[in-house]
Amino acid sequence: MKTITFISDFGTNDWFVAAVKGEILKINNAVRIVDITHSIVPFDICGAAFLLSAVYCNFPKGTVHLAVIDPGVGGKRKPIVVDSLGYYFVGPDNGLFSYIYNRDSRVYQISIPAGASTTFHARDIFGPAAARLATGMEPHELGEQMQDYVRFEKPELSRIGGFVKGEIVYIDHFGNCITNVPNKAKIKVMQVSGRSIGVKKSYGDGRTDELVCVKGSIGYYEIASNQGSARDRLNAQVGMPIRAS
Amino acid sequence: MKTITFISDFGTNDWFVAAVKGEILKINNAVRIVDITHSIVPFDICGAAFLLSAVYCNFPKGTVHLAVIDPGVGGKRKPIVVDSLGYYFVGPDNGLFSYIYNRDSRVYQISIPAGASTTFHARDIFGPAAARLATGMEPHELGEQMQDYVRFEKPELSRIGGFVKGEIVYIDHFGNCITNVPNKAKIKVMQVSGRSIGVKKSYGDGRTDELVCVKGSIGYYEIASNQGSARDRLNAQVGMPIRAS
Amino acid sequence: MKTITFISDFGTNDWFVAAVKGEILKINNAVRIVDITHSIVPFDICGAAFLLSAVYCNFPKGTVHLAVIDPGVGGKRKPIVVDSLGYYFVGPDNGLFSYIYNRDSRVYQISIPAGASTTFHARDIFGPAAARLATGMEPHELGEQMQDYVRFEKPELSRIGGFVKGEIVYIDHFGNCITNVPNKAKIKVMQVSGRSIGVKKSYGDGRTDELVCVKGSIGYYEIASNQGSARDRLNAQVGMPIRAS
Repeated sequence: MKTITFISDFGTNDWFVAAVKGEILKINNAVRIVDITHSIVPFDICGAAFLLSAVYCNFPKGTVHLAVIDPGVGGKRKPIVVDSLGYYFVGPDNGLFSYIYNRDSRVYQISIPAGASTTFHARDIFGPAAARLATGMEPHELGEQMQDYVRFEKPELSRIGGFVKGEIVYIDHFGNCITNVPNKAKIKVMQVSGRSIGVKKSYGDGRTDELVCVKGSIGYYEIASNQGSARDRLNAQVGMPIRAS
Repeated sequence: MKTITFISDFGTNDWFVAAVKGEILKINNAVRIVDITHSIVPFDICGAAFLLSAVYCNFPKGTVHLAVIDPGVGGKRKPIVVDSLGYYFVGPDNGLFSYIYNRDSRVYQISIPAGASTTFHARDIFGPAAARLATGMEPHELGEQMQDYVRFEKPELSRIGGFVKGEIVYIDHFGNCITNVPNKAKIKVMQVSGRSIGVKKSYGDGRTDELVCVKGSIGYYEIASNQGSARDRLNAQVGMPIRAS
Repeated sequence: MKTITFISDFGTNDWFVAAVKGEILKINNAVRIVDITHSIVPFDICGAAFLLSAVYCNFPKGTVHLAVIDPGVGGKRKPIVVDSLGYYFVGPDNGLFSYIYNRDSRVYQISIPAGASTTFHARDIFGPAAARLATGMEPHELGEQMQDYVRFEKPELSRIGGFVKGEIVYIDHFGNCITNVPNKAKIKVMQVSGRSIGVKKSYGDGRTDELVCVKGSIGYYEIASNQGSARDRLNAQVGMPIRAS
C-alpha cells in the first residue's frame, strides 16, 4: 500500500482537505493518505518548506508528498512534480520544495487538465497527480521535465571568533525554539535575547520552567523550557538571532 | 475498499470521533474512514448541510457519508439513512441532508438498537449503520422507508432590473466569501457592503490584499482578497446581501 | 488489518504526529492508524489518562493504543508496554495508564534502541514498539516484564447522609460536565455550585439553554445545557464538587 502525505494551509474547518482526498480515491482507491498538517499559516511557503524538510524522510521511500501552499493558484506559477531523495513531491513551484532539492533532483511541469478550476488546484491538479504517482505512473507521464524552478536558501550560520551565529528557524506547539545550529556542533552555551542557556541532555534536566538547550530530534539544537514554553519565556519569534559557543 | 466520510460538530479535543470510528471498525474492519471536518459550529445544522453539499460528490460513488450534528439526540427526531445521488447519507433527520434530496431520494428510518445511549447516537446508531452499509447491507435492512423528512430551502436568488440579488452563504478558512450566484451567470461586478468588486480570473489577479470576485471551485462566485482575508476587509458574515451585474 | 490508535499532546500544527506515523509505516505498512486526539493540554497526564479510559474499549480487541504525554522524555521514566483488558498500550510510565490497570495487567519495560533521540521517543521508541505489536510481536519480545509502575487513583465518591458527593472529572467540547457519579446510581437531582439540576432522559428534555443532568455515554452522569454550554452556565472546571441525591 503506497502512502500519500498531505500538507497544506487549508485548515480543517472547511471541505477542502476532504475534497482532495476524495478525488485521490476516485483515481487510486488503494492508497493510504496521511495528513502532515493543514495548519500552516495561510500562504506561509517558508514555514511549510521547513516543516516538510523535517518530516519527509520519516516515511517509507517512494512515498508521495503532496504539499499545497499556493497563493498564486490559477496564475502563472507552475504545478510541478519533484523526484528527489527517493520521494515524490507534488505542489506549486513557489519555493515550497527548496530544502528538498539537490543536484540529482528532477522537476516536471504537470500539464493542466481541461476543466481545472482556477481556484482549487489541490483538488483538480495536485491531488490527482499524487494519486497517479502512487499507482506507479512515472513523473514524465504527467508533464515535461523543466529546469528553472523556484528555490530559496536556508538561513545560514556564520562563525565569528569562537561563536557560531545563527537564528531561531521554527517554534513548535510546545514553545520549543529550533535553531539552525546542527547537533553535531560541539557547544556548551546558547545565547539568545541576552540570556545564556546551558546545553543539557533532555528537557527534564532543567528545573521546572527553566530554560535549557538540547539536541533536537531533527538534527538541530533547540531551546526549551522544562514543562513550560521557551517561546513565552523568551518572547521568541522565528528569525530571532542566537549565538552558540 | 469502501469509504465512510465523517462530518460532525464534535471537535477533535475529546474521544467522540475516535469512539465512533472504533465502533465502525468492530463491525467492518475493511472500511476506510475519511474525516470531512469535526469543526462545525456546535448545533449548526445549516452550515453542515451546505458543507456536505459542497464535498459529497468528490468521493467515489457508493461512499457512505456519516453526518452527525444532532442537538436533538435521544429525543423524537429520527435516525435516518438517505439513498440519493449514488451515495448513502447517515445521520439525524433534522434538515442536515436538505441539499442532497431530490425526487429520487429514498429515506429510511433506522431502527434503534437495544442498549443505545440517549446522548451518543453517533457511536451507538449512526456509526454502526454506516459500517453496515459499507459492508454492502441495503438501507431497507436497517429500517423502514419513510416519507416526511425534514428539509429546508437554500437561500434563493432574485432578479431585479439588471441585477441578481443574493447573499453570502459560506465563509471559508481564508476569509473567502462564497455567494449563491452560480459561476454560469455572466457578471462583471459584485457589489457588497457598498463596494463594487470586479470579476477576475484568479485570486492573484488582484494586487496584494485587493478584493476580487472569482468563479469559485464549487460552482458559485466568491469574493476574495489576494493573500488577505475578504471576511476581514468586508467585516462579512453569512447572510450578508450581495448584488451582481 | 490491525489498528493502532494515537493520543498525544503534540497538537496538529507541527510534524510530530506525522513523523510517528511514518516511522510506524516503515515497520508495518499493513496497519491502520486512528487518531484519538492530539489536543491534550501539554503535559496533562491525568486528562489523557481519563480520555484513554473513556475510549479504549470502543476499538476491536487487540488494538494497540499509543499514548504519548511525556514531559519526562529522555529522562529516567521508563518506556513501557501494557498488556491489559485485551488491548496493548504503549507509552511512558508516568501514570498515563492508571485507569487501565487491573490485577491481570502485565507491564514490560521497552529496551531503548541505539540511536534514539532524547527528545522524541514517540518517533524513536513508542511508535516503533506499537508498529511491532501490530505485526503480532509479543510484549516480552520488546523488553523485560516489570512490577513497579506508576499508578494514580481516580477521584472517589463519598456518601454522606442521603447524598453522594463527587466532582466534575471532565468537561467536553460542548461544555458538558462529566461527573464521577455512575449512571447506575439512582438519583433525581444533581447539585452543583448552589444549583439543583433535575435528571432528564436526554439533552433536549430541557428548554433551550436549560441545565439538565443526563446519564452520560461513558457510564457517568453529566450536566449539560440544551443547545448551550453547561461549562459557561456554571463557570465549571474539573475538580468542582457536586452532590447527588
